[in-house]
Amino acid sequence: MEEKDCIFCKITNRQIPSKIIFENDLNLAFLDISPISKGHTIVISKNHYSHLENIPDSELVELYKVVKQLASLLHERLKIDGYNILQNNFSAAGQVIKHFHVHIIPRNLNDEKFRIKIPRYQASEEELNDILRILKS
Amino acid sequence: MEEKDCIFCKITNRQIPSKIIFENDLNLAFLDISPISKGHTIVISKNHYSHLENIPDSELVELYKVVKQLASLLHERLKIDGYNILQNNFSAAGQVIKHFHVHIIPRNLNDEKFRIKIPRYQASEEELNDILRILKS
Repeated sequence: MEEKDCIFCKITNRQIPSKIIFENDLNLAFLDISPISKGHTIVISKNHYSHLENIPDSELVELYKVVKQLASLLHERLKIDGYNILQNNFSAAGQVIKHFHVHIIPRNLNDEKFRIKIPRYQASEEELNDILRILKS
Repeated sequence: MEEKDCIFCKITNRQIPSKIIFENDLNLAFLDISPISKGHTIVISKNHYSHLENIPDSELVELYKVVKQLASLLHERLKIDGYNILQNNFSAAGQVIKHFHVHIIPRNLNDEKFRIKIPRYQASEEELNDILRILKS
């Protein structure tokens, strides 16, 4: 299941070359050429799905098993201190390629190049209860 | 399977109250009280595992099915524009609670409070080939 002009479909069918580190029937994993950190890996489903909400459960679970396996490989072989597993959905969340993919982002304790600043706030009891009401109604 | 002094184990066994939005045999989901954005949700396995590498595949896949289901619910009910699915492993990656958990972070196109800046760089052919060699050896 392929989408015309999708760069990840073109990587899957080898129209575009990539540094592939893993492949099975359903999934492909390759190195990001604009990495956040050394070893930054992208894991995709070979079939084209745009977002988390439209990849079938049966393929989603196979993909996350691959993510786990590769995270462990990167951890051991690249001797990294940690890693983020990140999956963005829709432009508002920074999704650029509209083909479901998961980032494995190696992290190191002394990694000066990699700084994520994420502001948090203290939610009021009222805000939390409002959301709970909306979600459980 | 519970770990003494783990805050997420205490949420699971109701020693600590939380705003629970979903529960089944293996998983629990609740609102983050220090959210990044409104509706920020944490999905955990009820059993205590510290990182992605030690949660069994059978439980990992059930958890990500719940993540998908709740992301869809948040998307629809909170009328958000997108969302990030984030899972941090080890302190170097910003993991604070050492109990496997996945963040669902709602995003909106005009969300001024939420800005992630992640610097990327252009990897050289040599760097990518080096990593490939290490991973595939």
